[in-house]
Amino acid sequence: MKLLDGKKTSGAIKDEIAVVVSEMQKNKQKPPHLAAILVGTDGASMTYVGAKVKACEFVGFESTLIDLPANTTEEILLKEIDKLNNDTNIDGFIVQLPLPKHIDEQKVLKAIDPDKDVDGFHPTNVGRMTLDLPCFLPATPYGILELLERYEIETSGKDVVVMGRSHIVGRPMSILMSQKRKAGNATVTLVHSRTKDLAAYTQKADIIVVAIGISEFLKGNMVKEGVVIIDVGITRVPDATKKNGFRLAGDVEFSSVSPKASFITPVPGGVGPMTIAMLLKNTLLARQRRQVK
Amino acid sequence: MKLLDGKKTSGAIKDEIAVVVSEMQKNKQKPPHLAAILVGTDGASMTYVGAKVKACEFVGFESTLIDLPANTTEEILLKEIDKLNNDTNIDGFIVQLPLPKHIDEQKVLKAIDPDKDVDGFHPTNVGRMTLDLPCFLPATPYGILELLERYEIETSGKDVVVMGRSHIVGRPMSILMSQKRKAGNATVTLVHSRTKDLAAYTQKADIIVVAIGISEFLKGNMVKEGVVIIDVGITRVPDATKKNGFRLAGDVEFSSVSPKASFITPVPGGVGPMTIAMLLKNTLLARQRRQVK
Repeated sequence: MKLLDGKKTSGAIKDEIAVVVSEMQKNKQKPPHLAAILVGTDGASMTYVGAKVKACEFVGFESTLIDLPANTTEEILLKEIDKLNNDTNIDGFIVQLPLPKHIDEQKVLKAIDPDKDVDGFHPTNVGRMTLDLPCFLPATPYGILELLERYEIETSGKDVVVMGRSHIVGRPMSILMSQKRKAGNATVTLVHSRTKDLAAYTQKADIIVVAIGISEFLKGNMVKEGVVIIDVGITRVPDATKKNGFRLAGDVEFSSVSPKASFITPVPGGVGPMTIAMLLKNTLLARQRRQVK
Repeated sequence: MKLLDGKKTSGAIKDEIAVVVSEMQKNKQKPPHLAAILVGTDGASMTYVGAKVKACEFVGFESTLIDLPANTTEEILLKEIDKLNNDTNIDGFIVQLPLPKHIDEQKVLKAIDPDKDVDGFHPTNVGRMTLDLPCFLPATPYGILELLERYEIETSGKDVVVMGRSHIVGRPMSILMSQKRKAGNATVTLVHSRTKDLAAYTQKADIIVVAIGISEFLKGNMVKEGVVIIDVGITRVPDATKKNGFRLAGDVEFSSVSPKASFITPVPGGVGPMTIAMLLKNTLLARQRRQVK
């Protein structure tokens, strides 16, 4: 069993991006500039946005954090988005989700200029992904493809089971891995809450991507010897042996699955750290595309 | 074995649309108006467009055929599209594919206003489909969903194998049938040219949608008893017993598969006739949405 080390891999990607940025600076070019809009003071959201800003600093990007109060109206948020769409200084930007309940998330995502939508959530980017056209891939699926590639895991013709049909992980993952691409050309089955006899699918799978949000759901008796496991889940599980009273667990029962796996992502330190690295990659890509125009 | 009669079903759908249109006319409302752009004189394309115009007449739609010579430049075609985008008389329009080789198909499809894109090929519509948001569904997958619904074929929790990953049939079919919807909630596997041990997938499938463009590829020994078969293929196969020297065949070997099937689409007369009916449904939908605005 070998760990798919997302922390190390994301570090390598960030180093590569930093090299490109320092080249840009040598050539007197402005570095890429990412903006993030945060509405409200949700703790997790503040942590995520903070980590993104810090990652920008690390690779030499410029970053702007637009911090709006929780009672911001949809109208004002849409005006901020419009400003960023038209600000030639900004290469890409994100609106940190979830948004307060009085704001229509789809309306907000739709307002972002697809050419600056480095989260890849705009319908036009999702459509371009589905049609296998150049686009910004959503960060989590993009990070998983990158992990599979860098660990040279063969996917062509393999039996892949994607568990969970969310718009940001399961669905795009199932589409991407069956396309003609690196880390693609797989035979993909998308399983979900309505699937009957789930184990019949997972037991024959060569690669399983688990993104269902139920801690330690996938157990050792549900997988075959040599399986590759990508665990997207991360939840707090009560644990009396820990000082703070909990530990972080994935959607996979690591103790029973890892002995049978050829490769497996740890939680934490697997898929999670890849996400921010891929957001930076998308921002660099946005910058480079603007340059070409 | 029961035939999924696309000819009869599409006739019923057209009758339903005609009723809605005559209600509109009673209320002094303009009927829906579909425009079609045809570039060049390709025989099959002319036949298809002709059938679409005829179907419009049948249900009481207005229709406009814009017939451009084969040497039309991309620039002129884009200007025609722009005109239709801005013509308040036109509810929806299509550009008949394929286009002459000197024209960039993606550029043309992207130029169509997504709100008038009744073929559902614009990236924004494809993205909205993938995200399960209101959109125009592409006609062939839409027609298959409608057939499954009207014949009350249970899909929830069923093992569905979609054969072929084309942008206009296989890919959207695989997405739609695994979404939470009527004729959805299935466990879908998308198989394609790189799939290993194809029969292992097809032999356990409850429903198989075949869209690979290889005549009579799926044989009786590749399916289980009671399977539901949707055959999207249609090709001419040499046949000395026929006057014109050929017969029409699907991607399924009807003689060996139909005795095992619970339901099966004939070729011709299955999926084919549904396509135009769904284009009309999309045009009616475009008209109704514009009314709301």
